[in-house]
Amino acid sequence: MEIYAKVAVQGDAVRLLKTNKATKEEIDAAVKELLALKLDYKTLTGQEYKVGIPPTNSTPVNSNSLAVEEDDGDYVDPWTVQTSNAKGVDYDKLIVRFGSNKIDQELINRIEQATGQKAHHFLRRGIFFSHRDVHQILDAFETKKSFYLYTGRGPSSEAMHMGHLIPFIFTKWLQDVFDVPLVVQLTDDEKYLWKDITLEQAYKYTIENTKDIIACGFDVNKTFIFSDLDYIGQSPRFYQNVVKIQKHVTFNQVKGIFGFGDSDCIGKISFPAIQAAPSFSTSFPQIFNGQKDIQCLIPCAIDQDYSSGKLLTGELKKILIETLQPIIAAHQTRRKQVTDEMVKQFMTPRKLAFNF
Amino acid sequence: MEIYAKVAVQGDAVRLLKTNKATKEEIDAAVKELLALKLDYKTLTGQEYKVGIPPTNSTPVNSNSLAVEEDDGDYVDPWTVQTSNAKGVDYDKLIVRFGSNKIDQELINRIEQATGQKAHHFLRRGIFFSHRDVHQILDAFETKKSFYLYTGRGPSSEAMHMGHLIPFIFTKWLQDVFDVPLVVQLTDDEKYLWKDITLEQAYKYTIENTKDIIACGFDVNKTFIFSDLDYIGQSPRFYQNVVKIQKHVTFNQVKGIFGFGDSDCIGKISFPAIQAAPSFSTSFPQIFNGQKDIQCLIPCAIDQDYSSGKLLTGELKKILIETLQPIIAAHQTRRKQVTDEMVKQFMTPRKLAFNF
Repeated sequence: MEIYAKVAVQGDAVRLLKTNKATKEEIDAAVKELLALKLDYKTLTGQEYKVGIPPTNSTPVNSNSLAVEEDDGDYVDPWTVQTSNAKGVDYDKLIVRFGSNKIDQELINRIEQATGQKAHHFLRRGIFFSHRDVHQILDAFETKKSFYLYTGRGPSSEAMHMGHLIPFIFTKWLQDVFDVPLVVQLTDDEKYLWKDITLEQAYKYTIENTKDIIACGFDVNKTFIFSDLDYIGQSPRFYQNVVKIQKHVTFNQVKGIFGFGDSDCIGKISFPAIQAAPSFSTSFPQIFNGQKDIQCLIPCAIDQDYSSGKLLTGELKKILIETLQPIIAAHQTRRKQVTDEMVKQFMTPRKLAFNF
Repeated sequence: MEIYAKVAVQGDAVRLLKTNKATKEEIDAAVKELLALKLDYKTLTGQEYKVGIPPTNSTPVNSNSLAVEEDDGDYVDPWTVQTSNAKGVDYDKLIVRFGSNKIDQELINRIEQATGQKAHHFLRRGIFFSHRDVHQILDAFETKKSFYLYTGRGPSSEAMHMGHLIPFIFTKWLQDVFDVPLVVQLTDDEKYLWKDITLEQAYKYTIENTKDIIACGFDVNKTFIFSDLDYIGQSPRFYQNVVKIQKHVTFNQVKGIFGFGDSDCIGKISFPAIQAAPSFSTSFPQIFNGQKDIQCLIPCAIDQDYSSGKLLTGELKKILIETLQPIIAAHQTRRKQVTDEMVKQFMTPRKLAFNF
C-alpha cells in the first residue's frame, strides 16, 4: 500500500505545479518522478495505477516481466504476441493491461474536425484501436502548435511484408492531414544486438527497408529517415539525449518492462534509451532548431503478428489475396522507382520544410 | 575444476590456430572465447588462471565483484583504493591479483634500447610499475610497425591536481620517445552518469581539464583530445565499435568486474563499452584511415589515491612541497597560455602528422 500512497501524493504534486504555473523543468522533473513511481507500482502490484483505486491484491508479481500470461491465454511483450485462445488476442483487455486508451468515435470525430478530413479507414475500422494522449496533441494542434511524428522499423530482413507496411501507410496519412515533420528510426543497432548478423548486414537491411518505406509515398521535404548505426555518430545532441535517458532508467526497470536477465548483453540492456531518444525534439537540432517543447506522436503496432492468417477459410483467403495483390503490386512498382539518390536524400540530416 | 579444463582446452585451441596460421577472424574469435572463460574462471575461483596450476581452492567467491578485500586489508576497484595496512597498499600483491606484470629492469633496458633514450625516472623509480603486453608493442615497434597511445580522464572537477597529471606527464614522454599518435578520452558522459551534475557542467569540466592536459606540452599535430558527449555524436565508427563491444559483454561480466547491481542505471551498466572503444584504431578513421591492426598502449593509473599523504612527517612534506611547487608553478604558467583556439584545435577530429 505504501507505493500506492506515494503515487497519489506525487500525482497531487504534479497537479499543484501545473496549477501554479511552475517552470517547465520543475513540472518535467515531477512528472518523471510520477512515471517512475507508477512503474514501481505496476511492478510491485502487477496492476496499472488508477486514481482513487488502491491495488485489489497486494501480492507482488513474481515474474520479472510485466508481460504476464493471463487467464485468457494471451501473451504479449515487445517481441512476442501469442494466444492460446481460438478467437485470437483480446485487444480490449490488452488496452487495459498496457494502460493505454481505446480510440473511440469521439476521438475519431475530433480528428476529423481538427483536420477537416475524413478519418482514414484504418481508424474507422479499428485497425488502429489504441492511443495515449492524442487529445493532448490535438489540443496543441488546435492552437496552431505543431507536433511531429516518430515511427520506426527494426530492419531484420531485406523484404518488408504487408503487415510491416501498415503503420507506415497510416503514418503517411497522418503526415498528410496534419502537415507535420516525420522521423523514422531504423534500429539496425538493435537487430545487430539481437540477431546473429554483422553490422554490415544490419545496415544493408536498413537501406533495403528504407526503399520500402519511401515507396509508401512520403514527402522528402517533410521526412527524415535514419539508421542508428549511421546517425547517432552524426549527432552529438542525439547521443546526449541517450545518456540523459540512460541515467534515469535502472536495470530493475528494464528488467520489469522487457524481461531482460543477467546473461543479456549490456547493449540490449541499454538499448531502450536509443529507442526513446527520438521522442525528444532536441535529438534532431537540424529539424527543430534546438526547440525543446515540440510534442511527438508515435504511430506504432501494438504487435505485428499476422500468423492467425492460417486460420482463415480458403474462400476468405481468396478475397483477401484479390484485394491485397493490387496494393502490393502498386507498392512494388513504386519501390522500383526509388533510386539510391532518393535514399540518400531521405537519410541526410537536414532542415525540413518547416520553420521551428 | 570443469572451468579450469575449459580454459586449458581453449588455450590450446588458440595456440593451434596461431601455429596453423588461421585467419585473423578465427584467432580473434578464439581469443575472445578464451578471455571470457578466464573471466569466468576468476569469478568462480577468485584466482587468476595459470597454465598447469589448477585452482588451489575451488570454493566459489560469494561477492559479485572481483575487487575482494584480502587478508592484507587492501581494497582496490576501479573507483576505490583503500587499505587498513599502515604500510599502504601492497602493489606487488595487486599485480598478481590483477593478472598484470611487473615492469622489471629487463623491460626498462629494452625500452631504452628500442627508443635510444634514457628511461623516464617514473619508470626507473617504479612510479609506473605494472604493464600488460608491452613486449608485444616493442616487438612491433622494432619491426617499424607503429602503435598509438590512449589515455583518459574522468572530468569530475575544474581543477586537476598533481596526482591527476602524473599519467599525462608520463604519456607525453612516451609520445616523445616513440613518436606515435595519442588519443585522450574525456569521459564527461561517465561523470554525468555517476555524479549529481548536469551535462553542461560535465562538458565544462572537460574543457577546463583539457587545458590542464594541453599544458603538459602535448604536440597538437600528434594528439587528439575528445569529449565523449561531443565526439561520439561525430563518429559513426566510434558508435559502431561501442555497439560491437556491447554485444559481446554481458551484465554478469560487468557485474563481476565493476560490481554493478540491479538498481544501477543502464547508462553505468553499458558504460564500459564507451571506455573500451578507443582501444580500437577503427574508432578514429580520421587518424588511422580505417586500419584495423594498429596496436594500442594505454598508460593509466592503477589507482589515483594520494590520501596517504596525510601519513607523511612534516619534514618529508616540506621537501615534497619544495620539489613540487616549481613543477606546479611551471604548469600553471603554461596553462595560462592555453587559448580557446588551442583547445579547439586539439579537440577537432582530424588527420594527425602520421600516415596510416
